[in-house]
Amino acid sequence: MMETAGDPRVDREGALDLVIDRTSRDPVYRQLVSQIRSLIEAGSLPEGFRLPPERRLASSLGVNRSTVLAAYRDLKALGLVDAHVGRGTAVLRPPIAAPPRPLTDGVPWRQLFRDSSARARDPMLADLLAMTERSDLISLSIGLPAPELLPLDTLGELAARVVREAGAAPYLHSPTEGHSGLREALAEWLGTRGIPCRPSEVLVVSGSQQGLDLLSRVFIDPGDVVVVEEPSYLGALQTFRAARARILAVPVDEHGMRTDILSTVLEHHRPKLIYTLPTFQNPSGAVLSLDRRRHLLDLAARWQVPVLEDDPYSELRYEGQALPALKALDEHGLVLYLSTFSKVLLPGLRVGYAVLPPVVLRQLVLAKQGVDLHANSFGQYLLAAFMRHGHLAPHIERLRPAYRRRRDAMAAVLASAGRAALRFSLPEGGFYIWCGVPDGVEQSALVAQGLSHGVSFLPGRACCAAEPPMNAVRLNFTHCAEASLVAGVERFAAAVREAAALGPVRRGTAAETAPVV
Amino acid sequence: MMETAGDPRVDREGALDLVIDRTSRDPVYRQLVSQIRSLIEAGSLPEGFRLPPERRLASSLGVNRSTVLAAYRDLKALGLVDAHVGRGTAVLRPPIAAPPRPLTDGVPWRQLFRDSSARARDPMLADLLAMTERSDLISLSIGLPAPELLPLDTLGELAARVVREAGAAPYLHSPTEGHSGLREALAEWLGTRGIPCRPSEVLVVSGSQQGLDLLSRVFIDPGDVVVVEEPSYLGALQTFRAARARILAVPVDEHGMRTDILSTVLEHHRPKLIYTLPTFQNPSGAVLSLDRRRHLLDLAARWQVPVLEDDPYSELRYEGQALPALKALDEHGLVLYLSTFSKVLLPGLRVGYAVLPPVVLRQLVLAKQGVDLHANSFGQYLLAAFMRHGHLAPHIERLRPAYRRRRDAMAAVLASAGRAALRFSLPEGGFYIWCGVPDGVEQSALVAQGLSHGVSFLPGRACCAAEPPMNAVRLNFTHCAEASLVAGVERFAAAVREAAALGPVRRGTAAETAPVV
Repeated sequence: MMETAGDPRVDREGALDLVIDRTSRDPVYRQLVSQIRSLIEAGSLPEGFRLPPERRLASSLGVNRSTVLAAYRDLKALGLVDAHVGRGTAVLRPPIAAPPRPLTDGVPWRQLFRDSSARARDPMLADLLAMTERSDLISLSIGLPAPELLPLDTLGELAARVVREAGAAPYLHSPTEGHSGLREALAEWLGTRGIPCRPSEVLVVSGSQQGLDLLSRVFIDPGDVVVVEEPSYLGALQTFRAARARILAVPVDEHGMRTDILSTVLEHHRPKLIYTLPTFQNPSGAVLSLDRRRHLLDLAARWQVPVLEDDPYSELRYEGQALPALKALDEHGLVLYLSTFSKVLLPGLRVGYAVLPPVVLRQLVLAKQGVDLHANSFGQYLLAAFMRHGHLAPHIERLRPAYRRRRDAMAAVLASAGRAALRFSLPEGGFYIWCGVPDGVEQSALVAQGLSHGVSFLPGRACCAAEPPMNAVRLNFTHCAEASLVAGVERFAAAVREAAALGPVRRGTAAETAPVV
Repeated sequence: MMETAGDPRVDREGALDLVIDRTSRDPVYRQLVSQIRSLIEAGSLPEGFRLPPERRLASSLGVNRSTVLAAYRDLKALGLVDAHVGRGTAVLRPPIAAPPRPLTDGVPWRQLFRDSSARARDPMLADLLAMTERSDLISLSIGLPAPELLPLDTLGELAARVVREAGAAPYLHSPTEGHSGLREALAEWLGTRGIPCRPSEVLVVSGSQQGLDLLSRVFIDPGDVVVVEEPSYLGALQTFRAARARILAVPVDEHGMRTDILSTVLEHHRPKLIYTLPTFQNPSGAVLSLDRRRHLLDLAARWQVPVLEDDPYSELRYEGQALPALKALDEHGLVLYLSTFSKVLLPGLRVGYAVLPPVVLRQLVLAKQGVDLHANSFGQYLLAAFMRHGHLAPHIERLRPAYRRRRDAMAAVLASAGRAALRFSLPEGGFYIWCGVPDGVEQSALVAQGLSHGVSFLPGRACCAAEPPMNAVRLNFTHCAEASLVAGVERFAAAVREAAALGPVRRGTAAETAPVV
């Protein structure tokens, strides 16, 4: 402890006991800030204590003067010191044994949030979910199955049955990996779809969104590169952004991800993951061709980059020839497979699943136990029973013609009411039509026009990682029954016409780049 | 691009185009590594290119020679350069346009995991959950309610009823904030317990474990301080560790957290959160006295530190006078309240809830939408119906005498079979007896002895943040019916006697501290 007797405002200078660790990840100037701050807060440097002149401290520590200057500047910003020309830098604040200030204005919560948390601001997905409780809108915005096609009677009978057969177990804890009965049913189901796997390779997750989050937690450090498709799934983009990944977007055309561009990307970057929805891609509806599937896997093997295959839609094919999943073609064990019950059956139970190499599965289990212990047991028992009693395949068989009719109805209205201004390809399956809107239609204006007409849809900018975002919207055709689907698309087409009449939004200097000062 | 014609192995030296950003968070030596690495990987520095001597580069950049040395050392570790005395440092690897190596040995998954993920190794919680599917053990280890006391008939009737009344909604998405019916029921319930709140202040989470995780995501940056109790809840410690918090442990005595010690801690540290289980603390069973509740809140207000009150057990009081929750005493809005249905009703639906200031709730919603969209809808509808029809309070009334009998049965066996070697206080409520074991009994040996006798319990080291951990174990008395509970405690006492007979484990040099080299 330093001697501090006498008037603390009397100028003093002393040798500071500072230690620089040059191998630390912490820059030297921050080490200085931290150590001097500690000395001030511990009371070792009283108010009025004069810090050594920058040049002298720099010399005694063997660092650049600019480093010391940066440290002193930060200490000043922290309100711990003040600097006056000719009088040097003096400790300003008393030790913090006195509290900072009374809590008269309420808690400054925003200042207590962590950096990255404060940046997670785009509430679009929450807003879309919140809209699902509103009844005055025709929603083409969210990827929901048709509620009237849900097998409620079968589910009700099975719900009673699982409790009769398993007693309290569906209401109690299940293993983090998932209920063994569901893992077995999933392994069998996946085997029939060309993805042979053992139950021990299946991880049950609380919706495939959690699968994305857990994989991010396990693989992605801030700054790591993740390759996505452009456009891609909004929820995945949000998760990768929250993990502070650097996101590189590879365009999708009518045959799926442009693997020729992926090849160039891999020559210049080392991504931690390639994220792809190869079949009925969300939102474009594209299917990755067989050639590109092989090319993608070759590239992944060549560069040793894991491929995260997100596959919620492949069972919902309305025409054309099915293609094998990437996981089914994977010879090197590089594909991490993710799917869900949310599209082929129901989303509200929050049960998804992943097929993973054992060491990856184990790592996700360790992450998951700190996140939510396990997916809800009741939902797992219910879905296991639904599959074990053979209900899943017939249910999907019933969905296909119904969804095909809705897709065709949407396409017909888009073609007629859109008056050729709306460009789209008819997807062979899945949930969405990705619909280009005329140049000059501004997306926020279009969304506002849509809401005033009573229709919601997903603006393309939510699906895009790159700037500028594609001028298109995602329209879901599975959720609404045919009559309201047709009305919704007509409203959408009217909103487009009006937004086009408004013309591009003029933004004054927005086209110029302001200097960053 | 640098000229690279001729034999690339010919010695060359050139000026490197390196730029140091002294205000960056990245230390200078890492900036050098990163930039030189990019030049090598881009092919701008071909194999054999000789990097400038350390002293010259240091001088030209105005940095210390040690900084350049550190950078060259890292480049060597990366296999990008090699150094020979007298010949300097030369680029070793060709540009990486050629792939790194063929994938003959499988994917090196561990090397692809992120740093912090690789450290999340303690699988104790997952192992405990996995044990719940084993039938050959008497489990005193996990905090489970009594399965035979679950109101299965009522739940079954309500499950059918919610689908009759709400149609497909319980199987579809619900808002990220939670199903409005459940938020209303919870606000009403909390009001009767002295915590008046609006439904909009209630956030439904996928189990209170997710509440801990979301709060960590929103508040904790790596290195932030979190104050916990010693001992504390294993799952919370895991979550804070995964967030890379610095964990400071404040001891608990028979009146709960030692707020006098907390006061000292707050004079020396600035925690982001104080995490406490004030009522029937897990694992100690202690109840924070009213005086200490006020003291804790005063300290929190004085230092402006949010208090995370985890309150799963307070309804399960078997004797004595109830105390108000911290949230009920909170005048400054600093208490973040967290609870769950897992202890008073059932854990398998994974539904918990938090009461939060609006700005904090909004921030958690933004985090939650990227994590799992929302808690499972079916569970939320079922619990809302259970509460709305007035089943929760009577159910808890039925639990109390049953759990009290089990607590007393456990205490009686601990006193008799333990032969005074086992020290414990009788908790007035909750789920656990925290039982000290004799000095010299080693915890791993005790767990192994227990398993060989067919009983599991939670070793105290899992509940402790500080070293050395307390020599105690957590015994749950609510899950097992009385006969197997008695048998389990007898097995435990036998395991303790045998482990004590083994004596302390001798570990050779373990008592000495090896130098870190």
